[in-house]
Amino acid sequence: MRAILLLVLAIFLGAASMPLGFAAPVGVPHDPRHNPLDPKSPFATLVLPGNLPPVIDQVGPQSWTQAYGGADHNAAFQVSGQAPAWIRHGVRWDFPEARAWPLTDKRPLGARIYGIKEALPVQTQFYGNALGVSVVAGVVYAESDDMFAYAVNARTGHLIWRASPVGNNLMGNPLVVDHRVYLSAGSVSFNFANVTLYAHNPDAAGRGKDISYNGVYCLNAQDGQLLWYFPTAGDAMPTPAYAHGSLFLSTGDGNIYGISAKTGHKEWVTHVGGIANMSSPAVWQHRVFVSMSVIPNLYALDTQNGKVLWKGTIPGAANTGMGDVSPAVWHGIVVMDAVANPRLIDGKPTLQTIVRAYNARTGHVLWTHDMGRGPKVPAFKGGVPMISHNTVFVGSPITSDYQAIDIRTGHVAWTWHVPNAGPAGAGRGAPTYNEGVLYISTGPDLYALNPHNGHVIGHRAIGGRFGIVNPVIVGGTIYLANSWDWINAVPVREVNPHYSEGPSPSNETSR
Amino acid sequence: MRAILLLVLAIFLGAASMPLGFAAPVGVPHDPRHNPLDPKSPFATLVLPGNLPPVIDQVGPQSWTQAYGGADHNAAFQVSGQAPAWIRHGVRWDFPEARAWPLTDKRPLGARIYGIKEALPVQTQFYGNALGVSVVAGVVYAESDDMFAYAVNARTGHLIWRASPVGNNLMGNPLVVDHRVYLSAGSVSFNFANVTLYAHNPDAAGRGKDISYNGVYCLNAQDGQLLWYFPTAGDAMPTPAYAHGSLFLSTGDGNIYGISAKTGHKEWVTHVGGIANMSSPAVWQHRVFVSMSVIPNLYALDTQNGKVLWKGTIPGAANTGMGDVSPAVWHGIVVMDAVANPRLIDGKPTLQTIVRAYNARTGHVLWTHDMGRGPKVPAFKGGVPMISHNTVFVGSPITSDYQAIDIRTGHVAWTWHVPNAGPAGAGRGAPTYNEGVLYISTGPDLYALNPHNGHVIGHRAIGGRFGIVNPVIVGGTIYLANSWDWINAVPVREVNPHYSEGPSPSNETSR
Repeated sequence: MRAILLLVLAIFLGAASMPLGFAAPVGVPHDPRHNPLDPKSPFATLVLPGNLPPVIDQVGPQSWTQAYGGADHNAAFQVSGQAPAWIRHGVRWDFPEARAWPLTDKRPLGARIYGIKEALPVQTQFYGNALGVSVVAGVVYAESDDMFAYAVNARTGHLIWRASPVGNNLMGNPLVVDHRVYLSAGSVSFNFANVTLYAHNPDAAGRGKDISYNGVYCLNAQDGQLLWYFPTAGDAMPTPAYAHGSLFLSTGDGNIYGISAKTGHKEWVTHVGGIANMSSPAVWQHRVFVSMSVIPNLYALDTQNGKVLWKGTIPGAANTGMGDVSPAVWHGIVVMDAVANPRLIDGKPTLQTIVRAYNARTGHVLWTHDMGRGPKVPAFKGGVPMISHNTVFVGSPITSDYQAIDIRTGHVAWTWHVPNAGPAGAGRGAPTYNEGVLYISTGPDLYALNPHNGHVIGHRAIGGRFGIVNPVIVGGTIYLANSWDWINAVPVREVNPHYSEGPSPSNETSR
Repeated sequence: MRAILLLVLAIFLGAASMPLGFAAPVGVPHDPRHNPLDPKSPFATLVLPGNLPPVIDQVGPQSWTQAYGGADHNAAFQVSGQAPAWIRHGVRWDFPEARAWPLTDKRPLGARIYGIKEALPVQTQFYGNALGVSVVAGVVYAESDDMFAYAVNARTGHLIWRASPVGNNLMGNPLVVDHRVYLSAGSVSFNFANVTLYAHNPDAAGRGKDISYNGVYCLNAQDGQLLWYFPTAGDAMPTPAYAHGSLFLSTGDGNIYGISAKTGHKEWVTHVGGIANMSSPAVWQHRVFVSMSVIPNLYALDTQNGKVLWKGTIPGAANTGMGDVSPAVWHGIVVMDAVANPRLIDGKPTLQTIVRAYNARTGHVLWTHDMGRGPKVPAFKGGVPMISHNTVFVGSPITSDYQAIDIRTGHVAWTWHVPNAGPAGAGRGAPTYNEGVLYISTGPDLYALNPHNGHVIGHRAIGGRFGIVNPVIVGGTIYLANSWDWINAVPVREVNPHYSEGPSPSNETSR
C-alpha cells in the first residue's frame, strides 16, 4: 500500500516539472481531473513554481487543521522577532481570483434582478469565497465558489498554483497538513428529486445529492496536483477537521465520516440524520463536535469509532439554525449558536439568535444566552463564535451585532452594532483576538475593536463583502477572502493605528 | 438609443483586435464578465481569430432560431453541389471542452459513489453538454454545463472563441441570428428557501432562484464578447426561440418573456405558473408554444403581447412531465409528450410516456398515443419529438424505444428498441431525417435507421453519452455534443455506408 502510494506520489511529483504541471491520469482511472488531452484547458492545474516562497519566507503556522484556524476559531499567529521584516511589518496586496468582481462596485452582479439583499449571498455562494483563508509556511490557501482552489505567496500575493479538481463550489477553509491540502466540495443546492422528497420526509432529503460531485479532495500542497478524493453523496460544504491522522467530515445526507488523511480511505461512518450546511466540525481531546440542520442537534462523537457520546440542541432552533454555525471549543467548553423561534412581526419574518455553552465531556448545558430578535436574513443566519481570554466573541446577522460573553456565566460584557451592515445583515464571521485587539471582517469592512469594551480603535474599507470570513493574522498582516472573489492582504497597522511590531532584531535580514 | 448601441458595438469590436479579446467593462457597469483586471483569468474570453472560417467555408444554415434547429426539430441542412468538397464529403474531428472526460471511459466521474444510473445525468447536468450544437455559416456553437460557450470551426474543429459570461450552467442550444449568439443560463437546482416553500406550495417555489445568475446572454458571434444580458429570477435552462426580432423565453419561476433580440429589453411577460425545466419554446405563425412542469400545461401565446391563446395538457402528466420535452410544430400541428401516471410495480416506480398532437391554432386534441410503461429514469424523462414526412419520430427513455407515428392518425408505423440504452435509459434526443435516412444519437452511439421500417442501416460508437442531443447534419457531416464534454464531427458516411454525396461539381475548388 505504502509502495503504491509512493509510486503515485512519484508520478505526480515528476509531472510537476512540466510547465503547466499537467499529469496524465496514470493509475487513477476515475480521476476527477479535467480534460486529459489539453493541458491548456481553463480547468487544468496551473503551477508557477517560481512563486514558491524561499525558506526564509516560510513563516507562520506550519499546519492548518480545523476551520477558522483551530477549535477556538482564533486565527492569530504571532511570529518571532527573528522573522523577516515583511511579515512583522505587514504586506499589502490584492489577488483577483477567477471571477473577481471590482471591489469598488458595491452591488453584486445580480442586484438588478434579485435586489441587493438576495444577490449578496448569491455572489458569496456562486462567485466568491464563503470562508476565509488558511496561511501555512508563507503560503495563503483559499477555496472559492468559482470552483478553484488557490495557493498564493503570502509575501508577494503572486499565484503559486490554481486547481479545479472538481466542477463544484469549494466553500471551505483549506486544511494543510504534512504538505497536503484538503478541500471540501459541495453546493448549497437540491435537485428536484430531493425537493419532492423533502415535502414528504425532510430528513430523507439530501442537500447536494446528484448536484455535481461532492466530497474531500486531497492535493499536493507544492503543486496542487490531485492525490486522492473521497466522494460523498451529500454536499461536503463544511470544512473537515483533522486530528491524529484522520479527517472528520459531515455531509448533506446526514452522515459523519472519519477518513484516513493519508489515503482517503473510510475509517467509520455514523448516520445521524439531518443535513450538513456550513457547520464545520471541531475536534478536542478525541471528540469531534458536529452540528446539523433539519434535525437540529449538536453531536459529540468519539474520533476513534464515530460513536455518539452525547447530543445537545438549542431550544426552538430553526430548520437550518444548528447547521450553519461551527461549534467553538476551548478548555472543555463547547459554544454553539443558532437562529431560533421564528415569528411574524407586522407580517415580516423574524428570528432570535440563541448562544449556548455545553460541557464538552458530558454535554451538560452551562448557560444559554439570547442575542436578540431581528428580521430574517437570507442564507447563512448565525455568527461563528470565537473564544479567547475567557470570553466568547460572537456576531449575529439577525441583529448585526457582535457581543462579548463571559464564557463562565454567559453574561454580556458589551454589544457592538456593525455600522455598515447592509441589507443582508452582518456578523457572520468569527472575530480574531491578536495582541490585545479584536479584529472583525464583516460587510465590506475590516475593524479593530477594544476587546474589553467593544469600542472601535480603527477601521478600513476593503470593498465587496465578507461572507463567513474571519481575519487571519500572521505577524503584521491580516489575510482575508472576499465574496467578490479576491484574496486580500492588509497590514495590521492600516486598521489598528496603535499597532506596534516591536523593536527590530539586530540580526534582521535585508529581505 | 441606436447611436449608443453602435458605440457599444464599436468598443467591443475594437477590443476584438487584442490577442485575448479582452475588453474593459466600459459603459456596462454591472457587467457579468469576469475579472476586469486579469485577461489571463481562466474565465476570460479566449479569442483565436485566425481560426475563423474563410468566406468559402461559411456554408450551412445562416441562422439558428430555435432549439434543435427549428420548430419541427429536424436539424438537417443540405448544401449545394457547389459547396466545398470537405462539407459534402464530411469531416471528422473531436473537440475537447473544458472538463472533457475520456470518451473511452464508459463510467462518469461519480459512478463510484452514486452508482452509474444516477451519475450519468449528473455528468450531463454539471460537466458536459445537455443539448446538441448549432451550426451557422461554417461555425459550430455549443453550450456546456462546464459554464463555457464555444465557437469552433466546422471544418477543422479548431477553437474560434470560448466565453464564460456567467458562473452558471449553460444547458441550451445556442441561437445565432444576425451575427449574435444567444445563450441561456440556469441550473437544475433549488436553494433551501425554495425547498421548504415547495413543501407548502409547489407552484410558489422557483427552480434556480438565488442559484447563481440566470437569464439570456447575448454575445458577438465573431469574438464571444458580451453585448447584453437579460437576467431572470428563475432558471433559464430552456433555449429561447427567436422570431421577428424577439426572443421568447420560459423560466423556473413560471414566467414566459418576450424580449427584444437587439437590445435585451423586455417586451412582455406572462406569468403562467409552474416551473420551466428543459422545454424550449417553439414558434409558428405568431404563436409561441411553451410547456411547463408542476402545473403541467402546454400554452400557446401570442408572440406580439404574450396573451394566452389556448392551453392544453396531457392526462396524468407527472410533475416534471410537461416541462422536460420541447413541443414540435409542423404544418399547424403541435406534438408534445410527457411521462404520466406514476405507479409502483413490484415496489418499483414506473411511468408511461404519452404523446399528444394538438391543432396549433385551436388547441383541439388530434390524437393521444401511449408509448408504453417502464421503470422511472433519473432526470430528463421524455423524448424530444421530431416531425418530418408526415411522421412524428420520438423516443422514450422509459422504454428506451423510438417510434414512428403517423401525424394524422397517431398510429405507430414501427418501434425500435435502443440496443445499448444503459441504466438511465435512452431515447431523449430528437432524431434527424436527412435524405431518406433517420439519424439518432442516444446512449454512447450514433445510428442510421430506415425511416420506413426502423431497421438499422448503420451504427457508430462515439463513446461517453448523449444527453438530449440531436444529430445536426450539414452536408456530409454530423455534428454532436456529448455529456462527457466534447463536440464531435463525424462523416455521415461513417454511420450510413450507403451515403452518397453525389457527383462532384466541375467548378469544385481544391480547398
